[in-house]
Amino acid sequence: MTTTITSDRIVTTIAQDQELITLINIFKVEPENQQQLIDLLIDATEEVMCKLPGFISANVHKSLDGTRVTNYAQWRSIDDFRAIFNTPEATAHMPAIGKIAESEPTLYEVSYMKQA
Amino acid sequence: MTTTITSDRIVTTIAQDQELITLINIFKVEPENQQQLIDLLIDATEEVMCKLPGFISANVHKSLDGTRVTNYAQWRSIDDFRAIFNTPEATAHMPAIGKIAESEPTLYEVSYMKQA
Repeated sequence: MTTTITSDRIVTTIAQDQELITLINIFKVEPENQQQLIDLLIDATEEVMCKLPGFISANVHKSLDGTRVTNYAQWRSIDDFRAIFNTPEATAHMPAIGKIAESEPTLYEVSYMKQA
Repeated sequence: MTTTITSDRIVTTIAQDQELITLINIFKVEPENQQQLIDLLIDATEEVMCKLPGFISANVHKSLDGTRVTNYAQWRSIDDFRAIFNTPEATAHMPAIGKIAESEPTLYEVSYMKQA
């Protein structure tokens, strides 16, 4: 049993009993373009992705060494995720991102978890 | 304000106000070795990692295409994470993992989050 009361705080939950798929998308980028890439991912998420059916969360991570940006995202289903690529408003954001970063989007399920 | 009451459920939380660093470690693996790799990561976590100072969580993800295993892990600090490599009990697990997988461990901070 879990009860969460949250006010003004965005929290993403990783758990094994959630009905969702996880997209972990690693972007390789030159350090001088890392912040621009983050800004482009924020724009794409705010303007389009978060409004698409099945979107659950996006969690953009900035590597300390400047060479990576990783989006840990959750979607309701594989089909919802795949539909992005047939959504012109979504694909319109991809060329600008592709100009400064190589990405490796991969779909996952949670296999094992351990807490301290 | 967040209140979480949890019973018998492991949940990892991603948030921007947590004092921790995130390790996202992508392992590339042949699909026939994917489950063996997951088992090795579980052994290393259960036997050593979870007992080290600063360990917060490990979250092992299995790619649907069989070619990746990704550990989304949280540590209290960079120094706690780096100390792994000077801990013989921890490094003892690495050669077996290295035999079947290439890894790319990268440290991150959470930069942006969006919920549906």
